[in-house]
Amino acid sequence: MARRRQIYEGKAKIIFEGPEPGTVVQYFKDDATAGNGAKSGTIIGKGVLNNRISEHLMLRLKDVGIPTHFIRRLNMREQLVKEVEIVPLEVVVRNVVAGSLSKRFGLPEGERLPRTLVEYYYKNDELNDPLVSENHIETFQWAHPQELEDMQALALRVNDFLCGLFAAVGITLVDFKLEFGRQWEGDEMRLVLADEISPDNCRLWDARTNEKMDKDRFRRDMGRVEEAYQDVARRLGILPETGNGENVTVESMQ
Amino acid sequence: MARRRQIYEGKAKIIFEGPEPGTVVQYFKDDATAGNGAKSGTIIGKGVLNNRISEHLMLRLKDVGIPTHFIRRLNMREQLVKEVEIVPLEVVVRNVVAGSLSKRFGLPEGERLPRTLVEYYYKNDELNDPLVSENHIETFQWAHPQELEDMQALALRVNDFLCGLFAAVGITLVDFKLEFGRQWEGDEMRLVLADEISPDNCRLWDARTNEKMDKDRFRRDMGRVEEAYQDVARRLGILPETGNGENVTVESMQ
Repeated sequence: MARRRQIYEGKAKIIFEGPEPGTVVQYFKDDATAGNGAKSGTIIGKGVLNNRISEHLMLRLKDVGIPTHFIRRLNMREQLVKEVEIVPLEVVVRNVVAGSLSKRFGLPEGERLPRTLVEYYYKNDELNDPLVSENHIETFQWAHPQELEDMQALALRVNDFLCGLFAAVGITLVDFKLEFGRQWEGDEMRLVLADEISPDNCRLWDARTNEKMDKDRFRRDMGRVEEAYQDVARRLGILPETGNGENVTVESMQ
Repeated sequence: MARRRQIYEGKAKIIFEGPEPGTVVQYFKDDATAGNGAKSGTIIGKGVLNNRISEHLMLRLKDVGIPTHFIRRLNMREQLVKEVEIVPLEVVVRNVVAGSLSKRFGLPEGERLPRTLVEYYYKNDELNDPLVSENHIETFQWAHPQELEDMQALALRVNDFLCGLFAAVGITLVDFKLEFGRQWEGDEMRLVLADEISPDNCRLWDARTNEKMDKDRFRRDMGRVEEAYQDVARRLGILPETGNGENVTVESMQ
C-alpha cells in the first residue's frame, strides 16, 4: 500500500488520509490506556477485534436508520469512514451505575438507574475530559442547542437498539460512550455517529453472571482481557464458534 | 428570649423553630469555612453584616416580583423566614470566570463569559457538592423538569437585577450561589428564593480595581476580610458612611 499521510494519532487509533476526498482511514491499534493515559499497555488482537465489532455495530445501526460515518472495512485493522468535524463532546449513555457515576454520587455499582442517563464530557485530555452540563455546552458553544437535542435523541435510540442487540446474546449493556461528527454536504450539515463502538468504550456484562467483558478488565487488572473481547465478538457472530471457545485466535478470523 | 428548638446547624447559620407554624428563624454566625470545611475560622461581625445585606437584597428582589422566603429581620443576627423544603441543589450563576470554573476548564480568572452560565451542584457534603447536569437532576429526581426551568429563569432574573444593583455602587457581580425552597400553601407549591445572598456566596469585585470584596479574601488568606464585608454593606447604604471609612464597627450599625 502506498504511503499515506497520517492526520492524527490517538490512544487506540491512527487516522490516515483516505483514498478520496471526504474520507479517512481508521487504523485500530492494540494499545490500551486507562485513566487518561495514567496506565497503558497492550491487549493482543484488540485492534483487529474492535475493527470487526465496530463495523458490525455501525452496520446494524445503519440498518435502522442511524446515520454513521462508516463506509466499509478495508482489512484486518482498517476501515474507511467519512471525514467529519468531531463535536468535542463524549456522549455517555448509562443504564446501570458503574465507574465514575458510582464514585461521583456514591452509588453502588450494578444498581439499575431509574431512567437512562445521558452525560456529556468535554473532550480535552489536559483537563481530564471534565463532565459538563447542557448549559456549559451552550455557553462555550461546543455544540448548538439543536445539535445537543439531536445528539441526545440519537444516543437514546442507539441505546435502545444496542440494549436489544446485546440482550439477545446474553449481554447487559451497562453504559457506553459515543462521539458525533458534523458531515458537510455542500451547505447542508448532518450529525453522524463517529469514532467506534467496541468493548473499549462500552461496559458489557454477562447477563447471567455480571462478569465484565470489556476494558474494565484491563483498567482493574482482572486478567483474561483478550478472551473477554473475543467472547463479545463470538457472541455477536463475528468470530466463529469453536469446541471449547478458547482456541480461536485473531488470525483465524479472516 | 424563650428557649427555641434548634432544627439544623450549618456552617454559617443555625436554623431555629419559628414563633408560628410555617416559619423558622435564621441565626447568622461569624463562623467561616472554605473547601467544604477543609479550612475554618471566624470573620468578626460577618453574621451581623450578612443578616443585614441579605435582608436588603431579598427585599429589593421582592420589590421586583421575585418570590423569597424572607419575612423580616428580628435583630442583629436573626431573621424570620418562611419554612420551606430546600431543593437539594446549589444554583450558581456566573458572569465572569472565577474559582472552580477557571480550574475545571483552564480559563483565566476575570475573563467575561460569552453569556451568563447557570450551573447546578448537588448539595451533599460527603460527596463534596458535585457539579451535576440537567440530565442528572431529572434522572435522580432532585427537581422536576418544570422546577428546573423555573429555577433557571428566576436565577437569570435575579442575576440581571443584582448586576444592576451592584453596578450602581461600583461593584462587579462575578458569580453567586442561590438556593431555592418549595413553599406549600395547601396543595399549591411555589418555588421561592431561600438561604441568604451575601459576600459569603457572591463574588464581588470592585468595578474599577477588580479588588475582591467577598469570601475569597478568607479562602485565599488575602487579609482585610472584615473590612471587605463592611465595604459592601456601606456601598449598599446599610452601614453609615464615615469620614475615613475604616472606623465603622458592627456595634455602630443599630
